[in-house]
Amino acid sequence: MRLQTVTWQEVESYLEGSKGVIIPIGSTEQHGPTGFVGTDAICPETIAKGVMEETGAMIAPTLSIGMAQHHMAFTGTITFRPTTLIAVIRDVVESLHRHGFERFFFLNGHGGNIATSDAAFSEIYANFSLGVSGTDRSPPRCTMVNWFDGPDIETLSEELYGEANGAHATAAEVSLTYYAYPEDGARIARNSKLEPEIAPWGPIRDADDYRRRFPDGRIGSDPTLASVADGKRLYDTAVSEVSRRYRDFLAED
Amino acid sequence: MRLQTVTWQEVESYLEGSKGVIIPIGSTEQHGPTGFVGTDAICPETIAKGVMEETGAMIAPTLSIGMAQHHMAFTGTITFRPTTLIAVIRDVVESLHRHGFERFFFLNGHGGNIATSDAAFSEIYANFSLGVSGTDRSPPRCTMVNWFDGPDIETLSEELYGEANGAHATAAEVSLTYYAYPEDGARIARNSKLEPEIAPWGPIRDADDYRRRFPDGRIGSDPTLASVADGKRLYDTAVSEVSRRYRDFLAED
Amino acid sequence: MRLQTVTWQEVESYLEGSKGVIIPIGSTEQHGPTGFVGTDAICPETIAKGVMEETGAMIAPTLSIGMAQHHMAFTGTITFRPTTLIAVIRDVVESLHRHGFERFFFLNGHGGNIATSDAAFSEIYANFSLGVSGTDRSPPRCTMVNWFDGPDIETLSEELYGEANGAHATAAEVSLTYYAYPEDGARIARNSKLEPEIAPWGPIRDADDYRRRFPDGRIGSDPTLASVADGKRLYDTAVSEVSRRYRDFLAED
Amino acid sequence: MRLQTVTWQEVESYLEGSKGVIIPIGSTEQHGPTGFVGTDAICPETIAKGVMEETGAMIAPTLSIGMAQHHMAFTGTITFRPTTLIAVIRDVVESLHRHGFERFFFLNGHGGNIATSDAAFSEIYANFSLGVSGTDRSPPRCTMVNWFDGPDIETLSEELYGEANGAHATAAEVSLTYYAYPEDGARIARNSKLEPEIAPWGPIRDADDYRRRFPDGRIGSDPTLASVADGKRLYDTAVSEVSRRYRDFLAED
Amino acid sequence: MRLQTVTWQEVESYLEGSKGVIIPIGSTEQHGPTGFVGTDAICPETIAKGVMEETGAMIAPTLSIGMAQHHMAFTGTITFRPTTLIAVIRDVVESLHRHGFERFFFLNGHGGNIATSDAAFSEIYANFSLGVSGTDRSPPRCTMVNWFDGPDIETLSEELYGEANGAHATAAEVSLTYYAYPEDGARIARNSKLEPEIAPWGPIRDADDYRRRFPDGRIGSDPTLASVADGKRLYDTAVSEVSRRYRDFLAED
Amino acid sequence: MRLQTVTWQEVESYLEGSKGVIIPIGSTEQHGPTGFVGTDAICPETIAKGVMEETGAMIAPTLSIGMAQHHMAFTGTITFRPTTLIAVIRDVVESLHRHGFERFFFLNGHGGNIATSDAAFSEIYANFSLGVSGTDRSPPRCTMVNWFDGPDIETLSEELYGEANGAHATAAEVSLTYYAYPEDGARIARNSKLEPEIAPWGPIRDADDYRRRFPDGRIGSDPTLASVADGKRLYDTAVSEVSRRYRDFLAED
Repeated sequence: MRLQTVTWQEVESYLEGSKGVIIPIGSTEQHGPTGFVGTDAICPETIAKGVMEETGAMIAPTLSIGMAQHHMAFTGTITFRPTTLIAVIRDVVESLHRHGFERFFFLNGHGGNIATSDAAFSEIYANFSLGVSGTDRSPPRCTMVNWFDGPDIETLSEELYGEANGAHATAAEVSLTYYAYPEDGARIARNSKLEPEIAPWGPIRDADDYRRRFPDGRIGSDPTLASVADGKRLYDTAVSEVSRRYRDFLAED
Repeated sequence: MRLQTVTWQEVESYLEGSKGVIIPIGSTEQHGPTGFVGTDAICPETIAKGVMEETGAMIAPTLSIGMAQHHMAFTGTITFRPTTLIAVIRDVVESLHRHGFERFFFLNGHGGNIATSDAAFSEIYANFSLGVSGTDRSPPRCTMVNWFDGPDIETLSEELYGEANGAHATAAEVSLTYYAYPEDGARIARNSKLEPEIAPWGPIRDADDYRRRFPDGRIGSDPTLASVADGKRLYDTAVSEVSRRYRDFLAED
Repeated sequence: MRLQTVTWQEVESYLEGSKGVIIPIGSTEQHGPTGFVGTDAICPETIAKGVMEETGAMIAPTLSIGMAQHHMAFTGTITFRPTTLIAVIRDVVESLHRHGFERFFFLNGHGGNIATSDAAFSEIYANFSLGVSGTDRSPPRCTMVNWFDGPDIETLSEELYGEANGAHATAAEVSLTYYAYPEDGARIARNSKLEPEIAPWGPIRDADDYRRRFPDGRIGSDPTLASVADGKRLYDTAVSEVSRRYRDFLAED
Repeated sequence: MRLQTVTWQEVESYLEGSKGVIIPIGSTEQHGPTGFVGTDAICPETIAKGVMEETGAMIAPTLSIGMAQHHMAFTGTITFRPTTLIAVIRDVVESLHRHGFERFFFLNGHGGNIATSDAAFSEIYANFSLGVSGTDRSPPRCTMVNWFDGPDIETLSEELYGEANGAHATAAEVSLTYYAYPEDGARIARNSKLEPEIAPWGPIRDADDYRRRFPDGRIGSDPTLASVADGKRLYDTAVSEVSRRYRDFLAED
Repeated sequence: MRLQTVTWQEVESYLEGSKGVIIPIGSTEQHGPTGFVGTDAICPETIAKGVMEETGAMIAPTLSIGMAQHHMAFTGTITFRPTTLIAVIRDVVESLHRHGFERFFFLNGHGGNIATSDAAFSEIYANFSLGVSGTDRSPPRCTMVNWFDGPDIETLSEELYGEANGAHATAAEVSLTYYAYPEDGARIARNSKLEPEIAPWGPIRDADDYRRRFPDGRIGSDPTLASVADGKRLYDTAVSEVSRRYRDFLAED
Repeated sequence: MRLQTVTWQEVESYLEGSKGVIIPIGSTEQHGPTGFVGTDAICPETIAKGVMEETGAMIAPTLSIGMAQHHMAFTGTITFRPTTLIAVIRDVVESLHRHGFERFFFLNGHGGNIATSDAAFSEIYANFSLGVSGTDRSPPRCTMVNWFDGPDIETLSEELYGEANGAHATAAEVSLTYYAYPEDGARIARNSKLEPEIAPWGPIRDADDYRRRFPDGRIGSDPTLASVADGKRLYDTAVSEVSRRYRDFLAED
């Protein structure tokens, strides 16, 4: 069930059967010369749709903007300050929590969101832990799952690309977005000879430092290996793996 | 050009020809027994795609969550606190402003966003007006246009529904979403006899007060009049009108 | 009853008969070459005193500073950032709400306050709507009435000045302040030939943009038409109209 | 010159001769059974008018609400949270500082404001001290003077009331407000037998604790000693002393 | 009992006998050419250990960083913005309050902390005073005691140094730190001829202004008079006086 | 060089040779029946002293309180909300950055700090990345190193305790604190039979959930294996490994 295309009464009915919700969260940021600016939002949004079909989970609207300050030296990137993203996540969780949702499964497409989301969950819990929450409800339970780091998806990414998968603008995520938007993928994939073939690695700091280290935006990847066909395989694997992890989360005591 | 499905280099090229961007902004909130929870995000997102085709404008990802505290007594609604939405808009504008965007056209689908967005624009301007902005760039220029209140769209809505269009869960917005999602529309439209036919009017306060006044969520509307065919007409009119207003905004001295 | 010149026991007695309070809210900002910097605070403060006499309402101290970032390129203007004004309104309402006040009628003199005050009301309601208010009291009920836009006052302003009333440093508000401070009015009214007679119109953005568009501060007005005699008529009309609207607000179900 | 009743051009002229401004700051809070809720705002506002006449200083609008959480168990009290008051003072100072004001003299009527205002000044300075102010202007210089604790006014208060002056709802401040509002003073002064004659002393904590310690709101005072005649003497002394201190502040290297 | 070196069960046992806790709070800031950057943290930490031995009080970890923006023009100084320090104190008090602590005795070593801490206490109380605290517990009770301004310690400081004690980088506090860290003291004390012998006095504003007025960092002091032997006497006196004040605070009704 | 026990001129001299600083950061929280509440602060503080001796690094005062909301159901725990800790880290870094420090090495003792500190670094960078930093300095460079997860220390912990080291109240950290405070260690180590010997594992959420899953506070550990002798070995290994990582960080291009 997609929250966006149901009525409020249908949400009420859903809650009789489940207290879980999946919230896709991504980012709007450069993904190298052959990747979409929206890569990190498109991936979890696409996978979430599959998980919805497999598990019947409620899917909240995608949070398309994340914490991406380090990509700001590349045109088109949008970032939330961490404190803004904390407020965003807090308000989303508090809203759905009031309605009776209890288990919040953030399906994430962007490494840069992990720390801040974890901080956001603690910010939410803290009012309960300090005993000042102002509500009688039990605390919500939040988790974040990155579609790209389960054992199955990592095995497949390794099989498909080995080291060339990389850490940013990875071959795997680019494949997945080409699968989701094949025409746009075809357009930008023409642009396909990159120098060097495999991008460098390094630490992540502020935006200018990032651009100095990673001049075309990629980290450690050769995304010219990406293809729609790979994207389909990655999609199937991710949907199946994330569905399992979602069910585990609901079953958690 | 959709920011989400282009590369950062394509954004750079775009900026050589235009400094404008359209940011669809909506809400995730109840829209009565026959309207989608995502109505207010779906409408501007749908229209923005048409405006993009007509004007070549860059479309940023939809901000799907808005200020909807008054709908919180209906399951499924998500709200940002006003101060959260101010931070969200500030960060989005500051991010794109750094890249050289200068004109920010928020295409809005939700009345509840208007005041807070206006406050957000002033929060952004204030650092410039106080002389403490910390950047050498000229201030961004922001405007918000509600797709539902231009003269053409109001005339058409009046023609189609007269008084029964209403103020929340309007027949016009419901038509537009049925046009965008006809299958989902068909499912919920079955549910079509509402009591009373035309919902009551009244002031908007906190969530419990809202539910007391407007028991099924609608204000002043009979959305059972909605249809896909109307949605198509509304869409065409809105695309044309919003395109004109976007061009006017770019041309503004 | 003016809150400032009664004892706390007198406030307690007042609450036995009414739960309403009027809070004049204005701004400290340029009002063109013939208007007071304090125009927007003086007008609601003056009218509120009349409404108090007519209705017996409790009048809180005037909030003399508002959201006026767009006037900051004119010397003497003071602005709150929108987030500051939200905090100010929240604390005032929460304070009086704790004592048992339930209906908060903000009598406003400044267009620039409208959006932010509306956001502030939603910020206050949001804790109730999200179920985390931390108090057992019912939510407060807030409204903002602009003294200058009721039907009676608009008719009179039109009758007195027609188009020359304008949108900022209006002839009507300047008249009202001359009525309140005739000596100061006489001093500055000497300065009476303005160029052009009727100021231009345009959109409102940051402060430098404002000054570029509206070089002497006025928008659309010819305030040299202002007079003490007009101010008296405007005062009488406003007091009567605002009194009616205040009573309606108290009676609202 | 009262900022509220001059034009922006008059403020510009003022700045050619002085960079100083006086900002009366008070509170809206209980002042015992014979004192006005607005006592702490009325006193500095009244004295500031005298200082203006004596020194030609610019007087900003009175900040009538302060930090008064400890009085919240008495009906009618309004408080800003300290963080709100810090934002208020910051915005006022930043606004006037942009126009060229350099010396900010807060004339204070409320002990509860002292700590928070001092924190606010440091909050303003901190951006300069950390080198991140975002402006080229030199930092503003802020001071707070309590009208009630200069040597002259303390001597007179001691002479008039000795120990019965007290610490809250003092005989001196009540006299000063009766001088400013003799009719209202006459009304409430009838209420004149207090039990005990001189109120108790003690530490200040939260609101309920305050009421437990100081059941009628006074601390250490017998304000039934207050009179209009005393108020006149206190006014003259305060105007003279504050004028001297304002001139000293302007002259400070 | 030092909170840092006991188990949580030992804290539980402690609470059966006392609800009090001592929180040393200092600063990390320049203390002239012969004083430690950590002077203001070392003094209350050192004294607190003695008070713990004398009274059995629980000692929380030292808050070593305070509000020191005015010292920022001297290398090594660290400052919290006042709003940061307010959040720090609020979280510390709320945390221990949840566990059952009721009396919070901040033992302070830095004048610059006084105002902001007082604001912080009011920020904490305000939620209770406004009736929105979200907890059923009674409000915490907070006080701040400066080790350097009790009657006994002032008498001794006067006896030892007279006027040369000064206001910043005082001879007394430097002695106390030499007593705590004699080797480090010996190293820097060599550096002992200061010009002028007794530093100037003046007001405190932003950092650059401070450095202009007080070129080597001291205010009004000749800390070359400091010695380990004096430090020992000051320590004994402070421990005894602070112990008495702590016991008084616990006994306060 | 310990920042706390040097003069500001000594800090200036230090900066001629190095731009690096080590900031120990820990937590004040339960560590099971045999661990100190201050474990997570004591460990990095102790190791930092050794690293200082080995590398000559400047050591800032320990930030003893961290993000520990999940431990709040155990008496004695203190937590910062994540947004508070972000402000704390931002102010510390901005302060030292103004003085010329460029490389900020946070030596961490608490897993719960990792996410929030990472968010804090991004919050600091974001002003630079968005181009609104208000300073001309280059951005600071921040890293966090957990003393407990370098390869050498992990190997030794594994060798000493195998699986019984665990995840909270680990045998390794308890050993290290017994080494630092042998007397206190001896006192609490008596308390040595735990049930079950090895504590359970599980996810971390709010405080009550934590206590339900981990009734005595430990996660996965048997800290009764801890000893002073082990602590010495762990100390030596950590000092050597952290020193190497600090030097690497300084040398990073």
